[in-house]
Amino acid sequence: MKKHPALSISIREYLSDYRQEVDQFLDLVLPEVGVNPSSIHEATRYSIFAGGKRIRPILAIATSKALGGKLVDVLPFAAALEMVHTYSIIHDDLPAMDNDDVRRGKPALHKRFGEGVAILAGNALLTQAFELLSSDDYSCDPILQLELIHTMCIGIGSREGMIAGQVLDLLTEGKSYSADDLQSIHELKTGALIHVAVYGAAILLSATPDRLEKLSDFGRNVGLAFQIVDDILDVEGTTAQLGKESGRDCEDQKATYPALFGLEKSKQMALELIEAAIAELGFLGARKERLVELAQFVSVRRF
Amino acid sequence: MKKHPALSISIREYLSDYRQEVDQFLDLVLPEVGVNPSSIHEATRYSIFAGGKRIRPILAIATSKALGGKLVDVLPFAAALEMVHTYSIIHDDLPAMDNDDVRRGKPALHKRFGEGVAILAGNALLTQAFELLSSDDYSCDPILQLELIHTMCIGIGSREGMIAGQVLDLLTEGKSYSADDLQSIHELKTGALIHVAVYGAAILLSATPDRLEKLSDFGRNVGLAFQIVDDILDVEGTTAQLGKESGRDCEDQKATYPALFGLEKSKQMALELIEAAIAELGFLGARKERLVELAQFVSVRRF
Repeated sequence: MKKHPALSISIREYLSDYRQEVDQFLDLVLPEVGVNPSSIHEATRYSIFAGGKRIRPILAIATSKALGGKLVDVLPFAAALEMVHTYSIIHDDLPAMDNDDVRRGKPALHKRFGEGVAILAGNALLTQAFELLSSDDYSCDPILQLELIHTMCIGIGSREGMIAGQVLDLLTEGKSYSADDLQSIHELKTGALIHVAVYGAAILLSATPDRLEKLSDFGRNVGLAFQIVDDILDVEGTTAQLGKESGRDCEDQKATYPALFGLEKSKQMALELIEAAIAELGFLGARKERLVELAQFVSVRRF
Repeated sequence: MKKHPALSISIREYLSDYRQEVDQFLDLVLPEVGVNPSSIHEATRYSIFAGGKRIRPILAIATSKALGGKLVDVLPFAAALEMVHTYSIIHDDLPAMDNDDVRRGKPALHKRFGEGVAILAGNALLTQAFELLSSDDYSCDPILQLELIHTMCIGIGSREGMIAGQVLDLLTEGKSYSADDLQSIHELKTGALIHVAVYGAAILLSATPDRLEKLSDFGRNVGLAFQIVDDILDVEGTTAQLGKESGRDCEDQKATYPALFGLEKSKQMALELIEAAIAELGFLGARKERLVELAQFVSVRRF
């Protein structure tokens, strides 16, 4: 995987700096390993601090900053996004779901702590996300706080959100599917939470309806592109690069873009989505820059 | 199991009436089976409408009414409690947890829909509970609404709540345990959510700190008694009466009161807890009556 010349050092520094901020905040709010019952807190920390890039939190932070927000106000939401993402990964890796034994180069949580603790650790992280979002330490208008919780619930729920996508993904394995089915699975299982990262940050900053809609479209396009690139990497990447077994989608007869459209067309589609996403950001003027770079990072950098 | 003479028809009618109210409300707010992806909504409804007695919602309703609240204001919270309870049951029944194949006389959800869908259905119900609690249809002060969500999170979380109890329960199987360990497991895995039902309703009604504390003690004692009675029923009840296999706790070498204290002493302890619970309700005067009856129903009626 070649490094794209358009990416300067600065976006990498940006990612690294805010990753550190998010990690410090997560470390602060997650129960310490010593807290009883220790095994569950050891398990949640094992998965949270397994080396994720914090794409969702950093998208929320970049959106907030583009709209003039302060880091401190968006950090709880950013951390909640990562907790929710990690819960979804832990459950996805279970034998009854994708049955992945390796995640980010380490044994998946259920291989290390057992399936029972893995199910409960996922549940604990989902619950902690809502605990954080409903905290009165949150220096935010309570009505916005409730709206943010509600937006999160819809985005990760069983009608229009992540759980719906996971159900469709599970039930489509080994079956035939149309391009529309595929787009819908990808938008829901991965796109919806990425959309929440951008849209939720815009809600927190009380963006106008017009701006909310533009940022919503941006988030939706980036979210779909992200999963298409994941599909591509599953074919092109090595196990070492991915931190998990490559080629699993094909083996599991998963619904993927490369399987339906081939690699080149899939790459083209991802690039077009990122272009469409970026085209929504005109209203931000120079403040759009980090969001543009992040959108490119999500796609171009990775293949 | 003899019927206790202290229970008049009226508490049964009360339970039946409010069960119907809760069920109607759940039916209204849960996605219909036809909503895509239909299998997940079929699954959540299969478990929610499997014939539960709605003890937790009705405790919340009775607490609210004792404090002068209206049914309509407590129903979303009541329904959320049942969603959370059902999520915990679905996950508890999984092979990696208690491995129960039968629930309320029907195949457990994972036997009927598969483990993957069962894990996701539990997640969907937990998420829907928070969706409901954060809804702006809720005619409630947003600050109270946030406090209620936060209370729920603590009560079902991994430090002081239900998940902590489930972890301890799982890790104690087949191991030795003290009376303190046992009490802690039972208070957390079952007591905490019953406590939330009472305490959360009191928060919604803006009860004074003094009343909150009394109702909190009431909820805590009823919650622990409830699980002790469950342990007793697992020994004494038949599979037909329980709607699930009896004698499983012993087989699984679970930490239970009858195993540690014997049946008679366990019954005595449950009764004493209910008496202690009822003693907290003096401040309610005649308005305490339904809560007293419910506390008795939870214990005396069942053995």
